Parts: sequence; structure tokens; C-alpha cells
Amino acid sequence: MAFKNGIIDLRSDTVTHPTDEMRAAMAAAPVGDDVYNEDPTVIQLEKLAVGKTGKEAALFVASGTMGNLIAAMVHCGRGDEAVMGTSGHTFLHEVGGISALGGIFPSLIPNQEDGTLAIEDIQKAYRDDDIHHPPSRLLIVENTQNQCGGIPLSVDYMHSAATIAHSLGMSVHLDGARVFNAAKALNCSAADICVPVDSVMFCLSKGLCAPIGSMLCGTQEFIGKARKIRKQLGGGMRQAGIIAAAGLLAIEKMVDRLPEDHQNAKDLAAGLKGIRGLTIVKGGPQTNMVFFRIARDFPRTADAIKEQLKARGVLVGLSGPGEFRLVTHYWINAEDVAKTIREIKTVIEG
Amino acid sequence: MAFKNGIIDLRSDTVTHPTDEMRAAMAAAPVGDDVYNEDPTVIQLEKLAVGKTGKEAALFVASGTMGNLIAAMVHCGRGDEAVMGTSGHTFLHEVGGISALGGIFPSLIPNQEDGTLAIEDIQKAYRDDDIHHPPSRLLIVENTQNQCGGIPLSVDYMHSAATIAHSLGMSVHLDGARVFNAAKALNCSAADICVPVDSVMFCLSKGLCAPIGSMLCGTQEFIGKARKIRKQLGGGMRQAGIIAAAGLLAIEKMVDRLPEDHQNAKDLAAGLKGIRGLTIVKGGPQTNMVFFRIARDFPRTADAIKEQLKARGVLVGLSGPGEFRLVTHYWINAEDVAKTIREIKTVIEG
Amino acid sequence: MAFKNGIIDLRSDTVTHPTDEMRAAMAAAPVGDDVYNEDPTVIQLEKLAVGKTGKEAALFVASGTMGNLIAAMVHCGRGDEAVMGTSGHTFLHEVGGISALGGIFPSLIPNQEDGTLAIEDIQKAYRDDDIHHPPSRLLIVENTQNQCGGIPLSVDYMHSAATIAHSLGMSVHLDGARVFNAAKALNCSAADICVPVDSVMFCLSKGLCAPIGSMLCGTQEFIGKARKIRKQLGGGMRQAGIIAAAGLLAIEKMVDRLPEDHQNAKDLAAGLKGIRGLTIVKGGPQTNMVFFRIARDFPRTADAIKEQLKARGVLVGLSGPGEFRLVTHYWINAEDVAKTIREIKTVIEG
Amino acid sequence: MAFKNGIIDLRSDTVTHPTDEMRAAMAAAPVGDDVYNEDPTVIQLEKLAVGKTGKEAALFVASGTMGNLIAAMVHCGRGDEAVMGTSGHTFLHEVGGISALGGIFPSLIPNQEDGTLAIEDIQKAYRDDDIHHPPSRLLIVENTQNQCGGIPLSVDYMHSAATIAHSLGMSVHLDGARVFNAAKALNCSAADICVPVDSVMFCLSKGLCAPIGSMLCGTQEFIGKARKIRKQLGGGMRQAGIIAAAGLLAIEKMVDRLPEDHQNAKDLAAGLKGIRGLTIVKGGPQTNMVFFRIARDFPRTADAIKEQLKARGVLVGLSGPGEFRLVTHYWINAEDVAKTIREIKTVIEG
Repeated sequence: MAFKNGIIDLRSDTVTHPTDEMRAAMAAAPVGDDVYNEDPTVIQLEKLAVGKTGKEAALFVASGTMGNLIAAMVHCGRGDEAVMGTSGHTFLHEVGGISALGGIFPSLIPNQEDGTLAIEDIQKAYRDDDIHHPPSRLLIVENTQNQCGGIPLSVDYMHSAATIAHSLGMSVHLDGARVFNAAKALNCSAADICVPVDSVMFCLSKGLCAPIGSMLCGTQEFIGKARKIRKQLGGGMRQAGIIAAAGLLAIEKMVDRLPEDHQNAKDLAAGLKGIRGLTIVKGGPQTNMVFFRIARDFPRTADAIKEQLKARGVLVGLSGPGEFRLVTHYWINAEDVAKTIREIKTVIEG
Repeated sequence: MAFKNGIIDLRSDTVTHPTDEMRAAMAAAPVGDDVYNEDPTVIQLEKLAVGKTGKEAALFVASGTMGNLIAAMVHCGRGDEAVMGTSGHTFLHEVGGISALGGIFPSLIPNQEDGTLAIEDIQKAYRDDDIHHPPSRLLIVENTQNQCGGIPLSVDYMHSAATIAHSLGMSVHLDGARVFNAAKALNCSAADICVPVDSVMFCLSKGLCAPIGSMLCGTQEFIGKARKIRKQLGGGMRQAGIIAAAGLLAIEKMVDRLPEDHQNAKDLAAGLKGIRGLTIVKGGPQTNMVFFRIARDFPRTADAIKEQLKARGVLVGLSGPGEFRLVTHYWINAEDVAKTIREIKTVIEG
Repeated sequence: MAFKNGIIDLRSDTVTHPTDEMRAAMAAAPVGDDVYNEDPTVIQLEKLAVGKTGKEAALFVASGTMGNLIAAMVHCGRGDEAVMGTSGHTFLHEVGGISALGGIFPSLIPNQEDGTLAIEDIQKAYRDDDIHHPPSRLLIVENTQNQCGGIPLSVDYMHSAATIAHSLGMSVHLDGARVFNAAKALNCSAADICVPVDSVMFCLSKGLCAPIGSMLCGTQEFIGKARKIRKQLGGGMRQAGIIAAAGLLAIEKMVDRLPEDHQNAKDLAAGLKGIRGLTIVKGGPQTNMVFFRIARDFPRTADAIKEQLKARGVLVGLSGPGEFRLVTHYWINAEDVAKTIREIKTVIEG
Repeated sequence: MAFKNGIIDLRSDTVTHPTDEMRAAMAAAPVGDDVYNEDPTVIQLEKLAVGKTGKEAALFVASGTMGNLIAAMVHCGRGDEAVMGTSGHTFLHEVGGISALGGIFPSLIPNQEDGTLAIEDIQKAYRDDDIHHPPSRLLIVENTQNQCGGIPLSVDYMHSAATIAHSLGMSVHLDGARVFNAAKALNCSAADICVPVDSVMFCLSKGLCAPIGSMLCGTQEFIGKARKIRKQLGGGMRQAGIIAAAGLLAIEKMVDRLPEDHQNAKDLAAGLKGIRGLTIVKGGPQTNMVFFRIARDFPRTADAIKEQLKARGVLVGLSGPGEFRLVTHYWINAEDVAKTIREIKTVIEG
């Protein structure tokens, strides 16, 4: 399928354009002033998010980063600590906002190869109310864990992590940017994954194709506080129903087709495996991401390879020295996968 | 015209729905991933904003509050001071974000009746780098000044305020949420108003009818820093071109019709003047806002009157004890004005 | 008496040296590690402060600024608002720490001529939990009010201010840097003044002559939280008993002699009144501060006069354009007052 | 020697009382108002610190925590990142102040067994100015490294760490709380250790026996900014010369006797080695700290053992599960060491 310009863009699923149905829905959406809670489409979307996550209430936010930031600021006051993984989005890609803006101290523990934070590490990282250190008030878990391979963390693990956190008095926030990918891979519902956590953020953009927006879900009280912090951050939008309309379709129509992306990722990895000088890493695709490496002594740099692929109409991402990340999504079909394999083979082996 | 449901909503111009042309444009907008600077519609909108304000660069942001917050955070480091008016939006309606998130100290001076901050007050408020106080680094001016009556501040005043601020080493940020209303009222261009300031935020929503979004403009260096803080706040949006498409029309098609709103406000005020027990205040409408008061000993509360009007299909805002604010906009036409006058007369005199 | 070098230093009571008795006490003080709560002299001092203020618990802090900052940070979370006077020490001389470090938004109201904040202004300044603004959580009152003239605020006023604040859900903190001066002037105890407030800071330095330190008092819970924030600020000191020993004498021996300073201030003002070209302002001394002005058209600048006085061994402070502040204290006796009057007469009239 | 009450306190060198000579010096110290830079003893101390560290300027601060916090806040603006070790004092014992108060994001890397941060880890931890993450602006090194065993880091290592940091555009701050212990152990001067770093904090309390205070040293510009932040934190003290007088003796008289503490630590460790069920860990004492462990299956808890030792007049610290830390200092002599060995043998083996 690819985009209309013929480019196969595998850099991320954030590049997804809205579908034609979404465009039509946005054009027709009933709207109101969401700062006054009067936008009917936003209200409908928030209700739908409540249903899908099993939480009490939901809030439409401009991005996953904003959802995670607000969650941390509601769960943690100035000087509290949030425990998170060193491969997590919050540590890697959220510009340190929790500290810069929220005065929250991050306690960092390494993600394991399977994407999880070891229960023992959570336990060790926890700090009580002693006068010498910030008290740990929040555990942030990411599912699917992007940087570890787009790995879905099992419902069992979610329960274990939340149980230890709760027993220590910490809240649990789920960075579920791609929680529907996780649910499909685990053959369960998103709500199953969300049961043990206190709050969850999931994205309508990325694999679900909405142009903008994420949902933050939690208790009524949590969302009440979140709504005010959203305003403080400048995230209060007026006739947000326009983009919420795409969000409705994202949840209703796009979730169930995610397995296609997962299959495409599997096919892509299978095709790449045969290419000399390239190794599939991070366990092979479990959802919509394929990671591969070139050898340290490869005669060309990863950057050079990326540019060569770009010249051939295939855009890929770099996720570390010598490491490539390819993400499948709605705008990538079997034909695009086949072409990608061919082009990579030509460039790498050529 | 009113909205399709027949409600005449004068609470604010933030309630404006997008026009049908905007809806069509959003449905058709070419998009890309704006976090990668690849959304063509956003890029086009940023260029247009540059042209309209005469600044070097521009950034699309989710709201006026976000634009003002980012501007303050770029101009001021942790512990710097921003001078602003007690009737300003930043003090009144931005949830204290500059302090809560940015560690910026607000120095508050009263707006004068004409909406300006007295030059002498700016001078007195200024604090140097002495060890005892935060150094004043920023002056925030609002034009039109909303709470003082929707008053446009003259180009001369803008120059005077900026001159004193610059001579003291302060930057100047213009909260130009309604700077195009000011420009039309002053019979000049927005760029004329922006010449003396270092940065300006203006809204695409409000009177210009776009559903979402504001523009922040300044130097290339300023916007470079602003872009990163926008990401930190969670304001980085992906296929933002969808809503930017409405922004393009907001600037191109809606600016030149603002005088209609100003005329409607004048007509509304003229009609209200004849009503017993009601006084037009804040100098009468100079742009799109009409403020009136009821006497302190009026037998019913302002809240009660507001509810009675609501029951008759006319929504108005309260801007202080016994004070009403009515804002005209695209969705209010002469007929709506006439009906509003009739209903208010009935309710107040009745 | 003056200092041993013959200089009459009236710039502030912060310049006071410890007495010989204090020096001896510091040399002999039993000490321990106060971070472990094991310094017996600090413990004794905290008990004494409890007794004097009538609060449940007390904490020794490095300065009045630290005491006020900690109090604000305990009473207010990130994004809360503190109401205070524009002539208050917290606004003028604490480097904006509450915003820079604590994320607290200051709401500023003008002090009246008598040093108080008008009850009506407090009421108007108060902001509730609405989504648009920071919620007001704290009222800060300063007694004696330094910049308004070293004015003691009456016990009645303290009750009125606290009553309105509490009725609105705000806590009240007393910046009682010179609360013992206030108590002596009002002929009551410091505890009488502290009854209505939730927390109070008073200084052991200033008129009480200890070299370093202030006390923060409040409930057990408040002080528990304050202790941790003190550590966070780096204000946890080890063998603090050394300086606490001077603090014990400050409270036990120096409080009852403050009326001498007040009398000296009265005598100084009386002597200055006769000097041409100089006007006593701010109501004349009510405690230990004398403020006078020179006319706007005076042929020399205030700075020049200050330098001339310095050359004659008399140090004075400037508190505004053309305005001088002279503060009496332990190291100023009747003879110094007489000499000061003579020198000022010579310099001003000469 | 022990303290006068016969207690052998090995919990930390922070428990050290001032010597009689220090007490006499404090009683006799010439003082002034240090907020006005007029305290002659403080000025003398700051000059002495300049001489000892080879930096341009110095500032007296209330604690090591305050010195480290100020340094981080001068080197890093809101939203910048500081790289530090997970065994470092800043991460473990400074209440998260850099994030809570300074909006600084900590990037944590594990200390190696020898106390150093691996050069490769520093390199990997570094983050540039990309829009997704906070930029790394500061590296914090601790020498001696307390939690790793009181280990002195070599001058060579200091140069290597600073070279890589500087090449990446980061500043380097040395938490030199015990830098004189390091210098003695390395047989060099403190200045040798400080040459490669941009700023250094060292403590006058701890092994040097002053009751209160630390020194922060750096360029004139750095210290100018530090002075203002000290005031903001409430660390501006008035007649600080009283405690600075002890600081002068701390540097002049106590540094050269630190090798006695190191010898006592060696003797203590040698004596403990023979005790069954106890293992000396962390490489054995290299300065003034001895760490030992009991086996996981030891029949009593570490807490219980600590209490039994306390009942016998020996106070020890716990530094982790089953791990004890004993710190030698001025108030511990050979006889105390012998008694400590005996008592631990009795308690552990008994």
C-alpha cells in the first residue's frame, strides 16, 4: 500500500496517516468547547476509552508524552520518586519532563531482555520515607516495551509488578502507547492488561492511525486532577472533537487489524534472516517491530546504509549503534514487505 | 446564524466551531510526522504565521496557554522573573504554570483602565541582578487586553512598553491571542503590533474559528528552543497538518471579517444601553467584547440572570461579581444580536 | 557601645555580633549530630521555641529565608498559590525561592500603610480549585512588618487575618523574623501573636544577637515534613549545638531588653525631626526602625549622603529612592544615638 | 579517646565534635555580616579553600548537600541532565533535591567496584541536544567514594573522567566531601585531585571535625552564581565567622592527621578479620572506612547485632542488608579500636 508518494516508511508507526474514513469522520464531527467539557465527540471518545481499559474515567491528551507526564504529576508531588526502566520511553524520549517540570526524581532500573523490570529490582529500587532520599511513589511500566523489541508483557507479569509496587505503597502507571498491540499478541483484551494498574495511557496515533492524540485513564479522582494539569501544560484544546472523531475510529476499527501488522513484521523478519551480514535481534518480532544489527566490522556505517535505503524509497530507523528498527503499520502491506526485503538485501549484500 | 442547535453562545469566542470550508480542508490536508518536521501543512502554516507577524520563525502549539508558557520558559530560566498584569490571561487563566512548571516568579502590576501596564509601573517592577531578588527577564503584554474590555493597545504603546523593557534588559512577549482583532481595530497589520516585541503568540481558534491551535513566533533561535520545550510539555503532535489546515484558512479567510464581529459588538452594546438596571462598562466595545454590570442591589444574582438567559437560548459569561461578558464571533450575526438584546431586556427588566 | 572598631552600624539588626556570654556558651556547648536528632543543645533550643510560640514542635534552620521557604513548601504543593504582601520579605528579599524551587505561585497584594494586608484584599486574592488558576493554599503575614516601618500588627489583626484565611481553606504562616519586637511593642507575648497562625518563623539573629539561625514552629506533622525539606535544601547541619547555644541566650536574655532598642529608635527619630530637609516617614518608630526621607530636589543623592555618613563612622541603609532606614539594636546605645543625630545633621544641613 | 560519655561512635565521621582549640577559636572569632560579604573570618576561610583546591573562588555553605545542590544548579539549568553514580551521595542521600528543587534530570550509572564510573559508561550515558531527551551538562564524581568503601579515586582517573566529560561539553563537579582523605591516601594534594574538575565541594565537618560547614570552590563566575543560589536556598548566614573559625582549624590542623584515622581503620579491619562469621568487604579500608558483612544465614539480624553493640557502648552503621560500616575519625584512638574489635567478637561469635 505504502503512502501515496510510494515511500515505504518503516521508521515508526507514528508516521501513520489517518485513513479516508477518519478524514470523513473528522470533517463531519459534532464539536463543542472541550475546556468546558462540552465537546460531544470527545465525551464519546472518553467513554469508549473507559470501556476499553476498564477504568473509571478518561481524558483526551495531545500526545503519549503528555499523558505519561500528567500521570506522573498526579501520582507524585514535588520531590517524590518514580521508578522506571532505562529502556523506557519516559527515560529515553520524554525530554526529562517529569524532573524539569514536575520536580519528580527518576529511579532507573535496567529493563530485562524480555522487556520487564525484574520484581527484585523494583523491590530494591523502592525507597521509603527516610529523611535522606525521595520517597518512591510510582512505578512506570511500558507495554509493549518498545526499545526491548516491541515486546508484550504478560498479564501475569503486570499483576506481579503491580502487586509488589502496591505492597510498597507505590502507584502503578502503564505507558500503554501500544497496549492494543500487546493485547492482540497476548490474545487478551487491553482491559485485562490494565486491571492491575492505577492509570494507563494509550495512543490513538501510532498503529491505530489517528493523526493526533492519546487517552489517559484512571479513577474519577485521578482524571479530575489530570484535567487541571493538562490545562496547566497548555494541553486544553477547544473543538478537540475534530481529532477525537479519528480517535473513535482508531479504537473501533483499527485495533482488530493490528495482527496484520504483527504478521507483516514476522514476514519481514523471516525475509531478512537470509541476508548475509545482518542479524535479527531482540528476540524477533512479537508485535509490529523488527530489530536487526550489522556486524561491528561492517564496511559501511549504519547511517550510510540508512541513506542508501532512503534513496531506494525505504525509510528505516536507527535504534542504537549498528542497530536498525523497522516498524510495520496500516500503511505497510505484504508487497511493501517484499520490496523492503529485496532492497535491504541489495544494499547490505551489494 | 448561531450554531445549528439554535443556541446563541456569547460566553467566549473560544466556542467557535470550524467552518464548512475548514472541515473540508482538514479532510483533505496533506500530512506528515510533525515531530520530524515533515508535515507539509504545518510547515505551510508556520510560514504563513512568519509572514503575518514579521518574525523569523513560527511554531504550531496546542493552545494559547501552551504558547505563552513556552515563551516564558524560553525567555526565563529557573528563578527568573516575568513582569505581567493582574488582569492578564497569564496571571488569571494559565493555572500558574510559569511557576509550577517553569520555576519563574511572576511580578504583578495592575493593568490600567485602558488595558496597558503603566510604563512607570514596569520601571518600578523591574528588579536587577542583586542577590536578594529574582532578576526581571521578561515583560508580558496582552493585546487585545481581554479582561479590561477587549481593548486594543496602540502600536505606540507597544513601542513604549518594549523600549522601556529592552532598556532594562528584559525581553518582551506578546500574548496576542486576539492580535488580529487588535490590528483590525487599530487599522494596522498584526506585524505592525509585533515589530517591537521579541515573541508573540496568537490563536487560530477564538475569533478565527479554527478548532484547535495557536502560533508562537520569534527568532530562529527562540523557536528552536521552543520546539524542544513543546516536546517536553507533551505538545509535540504527529499528523498535526489536519488541524493546521484549518489554521491556514483561519489566517487567510477569517482575519478580514473580524470587523463584522466588532460591529456586532457595537450594535449589541448600543441595544443594551437602553435597558434599565444595566450599565455598559470597560469603555464600551472596542473589538468583539461587551461588558455590562447590574447594580449591587439588583434583586436577582448575576448567576440567576445567566441561568434565565440560558433557558432562553442565550449563553453569556460572568467576568466578576455582577459583571457579564458577551463576546461576538463568526457564529453570531445581526439577527442573533437583536435576539440577544430582546432576551436580556426581558430578563433584566422583567 | 558600638562595635569595637568604633563604627555605628545602623544598616540593619542583622549586623549584630554575638555577646561575650554567647561566645562563652558556644565554646562550652554540648553537641551531637543534629541530622540524627542527637544534638542536646539543639533539642533544648527547639523545646524553648515551642514554649515561646505555643506551637507543638520546632526546627532550627540556618536563616529566616530558609524558614519561610520550608514553611511555604510544607503548606503548598507544586502549583499551589501563596498570598503575600508586596512589601513582604518573601516577595522582596527571598530571591523568588518559593517559585524557583517550590513551584509555588505568589499572589501579591499591597500592604496597607499600617503594615497589614486588608482583609478584603485577602478575600479577593483567594482563588478556589477552578481549572483555570492555581488554588490559594497559604497566607503569609509578616510581623513586625519591616518595610512598612517595623510596624507591629496587633493580636486582633492576626486573628482577623487568620480567620478569613482559614475560612477559605488557607493555612497561615507568620514571618515573625522580629516577632519578639512586635510582642514587646504590643505588650503581649510572642505566643499571643502566634495563636491564630499555623506556623511561625522567628530569628535568633537580628535583634536577639545570635550569630546564625532561626526557628520554624508548627504542629508535629508540619515540623516532620519541614525537617525533610530542610535536608533537601542542604540545611541539615551536624553539630549545630554550637550555634544553638547562642540561640538559647538570644531567647532567654535578649528578648526582654528589646524595649531599649525601641526607646533608642524613638530618641533617634526625635533628634532627627529637628533637622532641616529630612522628614521622618512610615509613622515614626514603633519598634526598632527609623525611616526618613530627603526631598526629591535635595542637592545631593541619598547614595552620596550615605557615603558621607560612612566616612564619619555611621552606617545607614537605603530602603527606596531618597529613603533611609536606620535600625537600632544591642550594639547601639544612647551615646551612639546622640552621635548619629549629630552626624546626620552635619551631613544633611552642611 | 572516644567522646566524654565513653561512647565509641563509629557510625560516621559526621558525628565528630569540634576540638577544644576549635571551641576557643569560635569563641574569639572576629565576625561581620556575611550576606554583605563582611565577615573577616569567612573571607579568610574562603581564601584558604581557594589555596587548598587551586580554584579561583570559594563559598562557605551549610552542608555538603547544599554545596552539591548549588553546584548542580549553577552547572545545569531547568531540564538539563546530570550524570552520576548509583552509589553516589547525590543519588543516595540528598533527598532528590536536584530534581525536586532544580528541575535537573539525573542520569544514573553504576559505580564500579573501585568506586569509579567507567569511562565507557559516561560516554554512553551522555545525551546531546536532540529534541527527545534532556541534554547532559554535568558529570558528578565522588572522591573518596563513600559507599564503595571510602575509596580514593586516582588523579589519573580524575583526569580521564574530566577529559571525556569536557570533550562532550559537560562540566565536572567533584563531591569531595572527603577529598583530603583521598589526597592523603594517594599521597598527593587536594589541589592535584581538583585540577581537572570545574567545581569541588569539600566538608569541614566529618573527618576534619568542624561542627558545621562545607566549602564550594570554582571560578569567580561560578561562585558569583553560587552565592545567589545559596541565598535562594536560605543558606545565607549572618555572623558565619563563628563556625568558619572552626573551619580554618579544620583545614590547617586536621588534614595532616587524617593518616591516623586511616591507620586505625586498617588496624580495625585486621582485628575484625579473625572473627568467625564476618567478612571484610569492599576491598578493605583504603581511607577511614571499614565495611564488613555477616552471612545471609546468620542467626541474628544486622539490626539486632547493632543494638547489642550499642548496649556495649559501640555504635556502628548499617550500609545495606547484612552490611556494616565503621568510620574512624579524630575521636577514635587505638584503644577504642581494640575495644571495638573485642566487643564485635563477643557479640558476633557469642
